[in-house]
Amino acid sequence: MAKDLPAVDHRVSTDEEGVHTAWDNGIDPVQRIEPGDVVEFTCRDATNGQIGPDSTVEDLAELDLEEIHPLTGPLAVEGARPGDVLQIELLDVEHRGWGYTLVLPGEAELGLLADEFPEPALHVWDLDGDVARFVNDIEVPVASFPGIVGVAPAEEGEHGTFPPRPPGGNLDIKHLTADSTVYLPIAVKDALFSIGDCHAAQGDGEVCGTGIEAPMSVTCRFDLRSDLTIDRPQFETDRPFTPTGRDQRMFGTSGIDEDLYTASEKAVRSMVSHLHDERDLTREEAYILCSAAVDLKLNQVVNAPHWTVSAYLPESIFPEALQRQP
Amino acid sequence: MAKDLPAVDHRVSTDEEGVHTAWDNGIDPVQRIEPGDVVEFTCRDATNGQIGPDSTVEDLAELDLEEIHPLTGPLAVEGARPGDVLQIELLDVEHRGWGYTLVLPGEAELGLLADEFPEPALHVWDLDGDVARFVNDIEVPVASFPGIVGVAPAEEGEHGTFPPRPPGGNLDIKHLTADSTVYLPIAVKDALFSIGDCHAAQGDGEVCGTGIEAPMSVTCRFDLRSDLTIDRPQFETDRPFTPTGRDQRMFGTSGIDEDLYTASEKAVRSMVSHLHDERDLTREEAYILCSAAVDLKLNQVVNAPHWTVSAYLPESIFPEALQRQP
Repeated sequence: MAKDLPAVDHRVSTDEEGVHTAWDNGIDPVQRIEPGDVVEFTCRDATNGQIGPDSTVEDLAELDLEEIHPLTGPLAVEGARPGDVLQIELLDVEHRGWGYTLVLPGEAELGLLADEFPEPALHVWDLDGDVARFVNDIEVPVASFPGIVGVAPAEEGEHGTFPPRPPGGNLDIKHLTADSTVYLPIAVKDALFSIGDCHAAQGDGEVCGTGIEAPMSVTCRFDLRSDLTIDRPQFETDRPFTPTGRDQRMFGTSGIDEDLYTASEKAVRSMVSHLHDERDLTREEAYILCSAAVDLKLNQVVNAPHWTVSAYLPESIFPEALQRQP
Repeated sequence: MAKDLPAVDHRVSTDEEGVHTAWDNGIDPVQRIEPGDVVEFTCRDATNGQIGPDSTVEDLAELDLEEIHPLTGPLAVEGARPGDVLQIELLDVEHRGWGYTLVLPGEAELGLLADEFPEPALHVWDLDGDVARFVNDIEVPVASFPGIVGVAPAEEGEHGTFPPRPPGGNLDIKHLTADSTVYLPIAVKDALFSIGDCHAAQGDGEVCGTGIEAPMSVTCRFDLRSDLTIDRPQFETDRPFTPTGRDQRMFGTSGIDEDLYTASEKAVRSMVSHLHDERDLTREEAYILCSAAVDLKLNQVVNAPHWTVSAYLPESIFPEALQRQP
């Protein structure tokens, strides 16, 4: 953490009562802040500590899905009113040296190709500063971000943490890295902001259902923007649009279908086959690598009745000798 | 065209009988080539010359949609057999100094937000080398590519040029720029390759239904790859992942929905409103700019039942004084 950060006004820790596992505007705020304040959040990993750096695939059988997505918060922002916009500047996002990506079969039904991966799989990543290490000397650049940022919904009662909603939540926008800014539409008095589910890296799509999941610390500055009116999240970001920050060689597989979800499945299915057949990975490793480092783009959504979705694999994550030559 | 290109073995011109407007494996090839040959194609614009550099929005009322997508070809590749893969190296893609983006209402039903844009609109772009000029001193970097590359389908008879299919066609993958390589699954003897619908730039999504449409010349080298087996198009590309080739500030709007198409509509609707409300563009100009320069990404397709799609607007296309400051 070399850069200069402003002084932290508040710390929200998960050691105390700062964790909840549902969106509910009836939960009492753990702290109150003023607009302009800087807050450092401690965030648990998505399984609430059930997976650790020494976990193995056998541990997945015991996983209690009810514990998934412990969120740090809620934080009350003084003066926030429904209709205002909460501006969250992400100042710093710091991992602790390890993370994991898992594939869960069965009742979880997690992942774009859930039916094709009936066995559980787990990769624990060594996070060495800016590099996440995979098998075969593959290195995925770290670009840490909180998968979940949100404010409490207007509707009373408990709402699950899996689906995102207009006030935010499990957005999984990989570009919400340090130095980006998120804007959320406030739905209730005091806003009631929560954060969690941090990822050290993720491909657009997060296709196996998990990014590189990791406990982290996130530092944010909050402001109220009564001059803005938005219905859904908006954001500003600088990165990452490629792993290296510059245009670079990608290998692409296209899916064509009248349904965008099916087109996405086809694109990812081709990429998994490519990684298995030509890059010496097991199918489970291929699926995990897609979720951590392969981006899904909507090439066109106008050539009715068939849309094009493509999956993009950066060559730069492979050792030079294994990069596909043009 | 400063770079060294290999000698051209064949030229396929649209001045002769080299144009067709449907996919049909019964169309006689205009030329036969050997694997390894380099071919220069002349490509008409998507309207087959109905729009020119002096056209105005009034001319759209007269547009004959039946003429859309004149394709140059088909080219027979000696030795190509069903099941083989046609490798197309895109060596050079050259515009002629102008292009256009249009919004067509009515029977065309073209565009992601067709119902919200009942009036026709047209912008004719001055293409000054690597820059496409829009209103308000907005400059979109040129990154020319053929929207349509494909081989004839196995099924007999005429097939429309609007939807792409597994052997390719109207893919509209903006990354098929010069120096990229496309792989298409060959469906019939001799492959029967055709090309057209060139764009000087396009956002991922091509949301108003057209990119920067332009007549162009495209030079390709062809090869047969009997060592590969693919079901759908694949490709290798270097660019463009951002307009400048480097990570840079983007403004993003998110759409959240249980249907990816609806989520895309929401993301683009927010971006159009942003460009209209905060960037001093008419709604039609905003929609056109989205189609030419805003990228749609699938952030996540796994947080059931709500997916996240976001639209990304690069600040670098605006004059410095009009760039949104963080």
